[in-house]
Amino acid sequence: MIDINKEIESLNWDKEPKGLYEPIGYALASGGKRVRPTLALMAAEVIVNGGLLNGDAIEQTVPAALALEVFHNFTLLHDDVMDRAEIRRGRPTVHVKWNDNTAILSGDQMLIEAYKLLAEVPADKLPQVLKWFNEMATGICEGQQMDVDFEHMSQVTLDDYMKMIELKTSVLLANAMRIGGYIAGATPVQQEALYQYGLHIGLAFQVQDDILDVYGDPKTFGKAIGGDICCNKKTALLITALENADAESKAELLQWIMATDRNEEKIAAVTEIYNRLGVRQTCEAIMEEHTALALAQLDKLPQNDTTERLRVMAEQLVMRKS
Amino acid sequence: MIDINKEIESLNWDKEPKGLYEPIGYALASGGKRVRPTLALMAAEVIVNGGLLNGDAIEQTVPAALALEVFHNFTLLHDDVMDRAEIRRGRPTVHVKWNDNTAILSGDQMLIEAYKLLAEVPADKLPQVLKWFNEMATGICEGQQMDVDFEHMSQVTLDDYMKMIELKTSVLLANAMRIGGYIAGATPVQQEALYQYGLHIGLAFQVQDDILDVYGDPKTFGKAIGGDICCNKKTALLITALENADAESKAELLQWIMATDRNEEKIAAVTEIYNRLGVRQTCEAIMEEHTALALAQLDKLPQNDTTERLRVMAEQLVMRKS
Repeated sequence: MIDINKEIESLNWDKEPKGLYEPIGYALASGGKRVRPTLALMAAEVIVNGGLLNGDAIEQTVPAALALEVFHNFTLLHDDVMDRAEIRRGRPTVHVKWNDNTAILSGDQMLIEAYKLLAEVPADKLPQVLKWFNEMATGICEGQQMDVDFEHMSQVTLDDYMKMIELKTSVLLANAMRIGGYIAGATPVQQEALYQYGLHIGLAFQVQDDILDVYGDPKTFGKAIGGDICCNKKTALLITALENADAESKAELLQWIMATDRNEEKIAAVTEIYNRLGVRQTCEAIMEEHTALALAQLDKLPQNDTTERLRVMAEQLVMRKS
Repeated sequence: MIDINKEIESLNWDKEPKGLYEPIGYALASGGKRVRPTLALMAAEVIVNGGLLNGDAIEQTVPAALALEVFHNFTLLHDDVMDRAEIRRGRPTVHVKWNDNTAILSGDQMLIEAYKLLAEVPADKLPQVLKWFNEMATGICEGQQMDVDFEHMSQVTLDDYMKMIELKTSVLLANAMRIGGYIAGATPVQQEALYQYGLHIGLAFQVQDDILDVYGDPKTFGKAIGGDICCNKKTALLITALENADAESKAELLQWIMATDRNEEKIAAVTEIYNRLGVRQTCEAIMEEHTALALAQLDKLPQNDTTERLRVMAEQLVMRKS
């Protein structure tokens, strides 16, 4: 059994120049749920336990799994600079603890480190894995740009939003599953099922994230509650509210969006509007729909303990509080 | 005959989201000497003309050559943000024309685009090329970090400086040569000769760049003359001056380093100290030494028209004015 946290800890960042590598070690040591590498390894386990009984296939998936985690943390470093986010997983972000330039350059190096790990993929699998990894990385940058564009757009539909989070979040989970499974020997049909599972889990995860920003438990959420409301972030909740509101509620909501001071009052008022419009329930329904789509993919895969764990994971996602 | 400018123009950046891809097109359309892809293609030509007469080998080198150019321009985008540089090749830098976040995110995408191009390398050559490319990219980030560290260090030796520019500039040229040659079928001895040619050409090029910042022709240099002097950049000239100065000149130099206003006066005064100490001649000698080391590598390669062009290129480098 691979311990992904141990694998991440075993990466060596005690290298010169320290100014480049220390922030990478700091970022990767800050925990998080390690969702992406865990999914990659689980995808490999589903395939191997269900078929070849080839333990090496799991070992061979480890570098790609680590590449996905390092890549994910690279995006966080640069996103935090762009969003001016000060706290990440309860600790100062890299650009706050060091400075912007450090976050840019160490972030660049993390992206390169991800490709260094990827280069350890068995040579016969490398071309396909590199291609998928590049597509995924492109999707994430495109999604981030769409997210930025949305800030300045007066109207964003829920369809636009779902496309954006698909690129920004879900393609990473989808490719984690597909790459993990492919290295372990998945058939094309299995690769596609793994991809779709990751995609829909990702969509459900992001919508849940939006919900938790408003309705989460401040003790476990790791970020301040209502952050999205304060900065008028076009989340699934805000977009749903604007789409579903009667004229009066919409006017009230738009007035609060213009308010840039009185943050506590704003969070309370907007939450109250969300409650009135049943936004939480609407978004939970979207989340549940995607969870169901993810679960349906599992029927196309070998049935074993890991498939069962993926089932439980999807079900728990809907109930998570942080 | 491959026209590298046409190849670069044929890359398509007319894609959505425009906010992500337009700055990439802008950066790549800004010209420059295309040194890196040209070197990669020339390395391939040296090997092929001297041996297999295999035209496909040159074609196969094109994606890697383009990857090197796109990668190089990625580093410029992020370096310009970190250095707050406003002009690049006579035009506003991306972070000035757009903003910092755009330069960060479009820069990230350029790095990914470089890897997308690299993924087109023939599958049997891909693992080695990816490994070298990753080493090169790592060297460049390490070199950039050393450059940043040097700003805050009271003493930087010329050895430290040469190590820094080796990483920041030369490993890219060295790997351009090695990768180009390798894809075209170079033997290990030839690969090493190509690498060393690029390495020493790069060192000579960077020292020449430092010289031109002070002694270049403002009409063709593309940047303001004396920029390095104004910001106290620890160039080969300043380090040589500090290492070689008598007590009086050193005190004078250090006093000017502390002056942060009166830039024109500072440039004139520091240049005068450089002239007095013969700094230009010392640095030109270093440049010529590395040019000679580069030229010596060519004897280990097949002798043909392209080898001759590499010889001329090295000789002209020493005489360039911009």
